Amino acid sequence: MKALEEKILREGRVLPGNILNVGSFMNQQLDSDFIMEMGREIARLFADEKPDKILTVEASGIALALAAGAALHCPVVFAKKHRSGNVSGEVYTARVHSYTHGNDNDIVVAKEYLGPGQRVLAVDDFLASGEALRGLFELIRQADAVPVGAATAIEKGFQSGGDGLRAAGYRVESLAILDSMEEGKLLFRPQ
Amino acid sequence: MKALEEKILREGRVLPGNILNVGSFMNQQLDSDFIMEMGREIARLFADEKPDKILTVEASGIALALAAGAALHCPVVFAKKHRSGNVSGEVYTARVHSYTHGNDNDIVVAKEYLGPGQRVLAVDDFLASGEALRGLFELIRQADAVPVGAATAIEKGFQSGGDGLRAAGYRVESLAILDSMEEGKLLFRPQ
Repeated sequence: MKALEEKILREGRVLPGNILNVGSFMNQQLDSDFIMEMGREIARLFADEKPDKILTVEASGIALALAAGAALHCPVVFAKKHRSGNVSGEVYTARVHSYTHGNDNDIVVAKEYLGPGQRVLAVDDFLASGEALRGLFELIRQADAVPVGAATAIEKGFQSGGDGLRAAGYRVESLAILDSMEEGKLLFRPQ
Repeated sequence: MKALEEKILREGRVLPGNILNVGSFMNQQLDSDFIMEMGREIARLFADEKPDKILTVEASGIALALAAGAALHCPVVFAKKHRSGNVSGEVYTARVHSYTHGNDNDIVVAKEYLGPGQRVLAVDDFLASGEALRGLFELIRQADAVPVGAATAIEKGFQSGGDGLRAAGYRVESLAILDSMEEGKLLFRPQ
C-alpha cells in the first residue's frame, strides 16, 4: 500500500534496536481517516475469502481490526492479554512471547465468541517475530474455526515471522513490508 | 440513542454485582457496524464543539474513540495504562482507580500528542464511577488543552460519576444511561 509506505517515510522514526515508532498515526495517536483507509485495503485483499469474523489482540490491534471489520461488515473479536474478571465462562488460550516487553502473556478469548466452522481473519498492527499471529492462529485452531489468513499493517520482513507463517501455508498480507532498517534507512519490499 | 438501548436489552446480560456484560457487541466482541454508528452519533452530538482531538484510554475505549474520530475526521490519542517501552520522552500522567479490577493504574500519554489550546473530546465505553474520565480530564488539564466534554456509550446513572462530572461543569453525553439494574431489570433515563 503505497500510501502507507509514504506515511511511514514521512512520519515514522527509527529508534535504537530496530524499533520503528509510528506513534503519530498508528499507535498512541491514531490517524482515524488513515486507519479506516487501511481497513478498506485489508477488506479489498480478503473480500474473496468471505471472513465471518476478525480476530485480533488488545490493545494495539483493535483500531486496525475495527477498521477492517467496518469495511467487511463483520464483527471483531479481540483476545485479552490475561484472564480478566469480565471474561466469564470457558476460554481458549495461547501463550505469546513479547520481544518488545520481554515477557510472556497468555492471550485469552471466551469460547462463545469463536466457534467451529467460522471463517476467521487474524489482524494485527505489526508483524515481526510472528508470535502474536501464531497465538491468534492457535486460538482459531482450538475453536475448530477456519483461518482464512492474516493481515497486518507493517511487517518487518527482515525478521522471520511473516515468511515463516507463509511457509507454513497461511496467507499473510502486510500493507507495507520493511526489508531493511539498516542505519535508519527504510527499504520496502516491492509488492 | 434508542438503537443502543434496544441492543442492550436484546444482547446485554446482567451479572452479579451490577455488572452489565455487553461483551457480544462492545467488549471482547465488537459489532463493527454498530460501533461505527455510535461513533457517528457522538460526532453529531459534538460537531459544534469542533474537537481537534479525541482522547481515550486503552484498551476498551479505543474502538468507540476510533469510530468517533473517523466520523469527526480527527485523530485519536489513547492513554496507556502504565509507562511502556514504546512511549518515549516526556509524558502526562494521572492515577486512575479501577473498581472492576480493584487496582490503581497510571494512565500515561506522551506530551507530543496532546498540546496547549487543542480542543479535546474524552471518549470511553463505560461511565460508572467516573474515574477514567476524571483521569482523562486531568491529562487534558496538564497539557493546557481545552476539554470540550466527554462522550460514553453506556453510563450507569445510579453511580455518581456522570452527574458528578456534569456538576463540575463538564458536558457529558452518554448514548444510553441506565438508572437502575435492580433484580436484572434495566431502566433507562429518558433523554
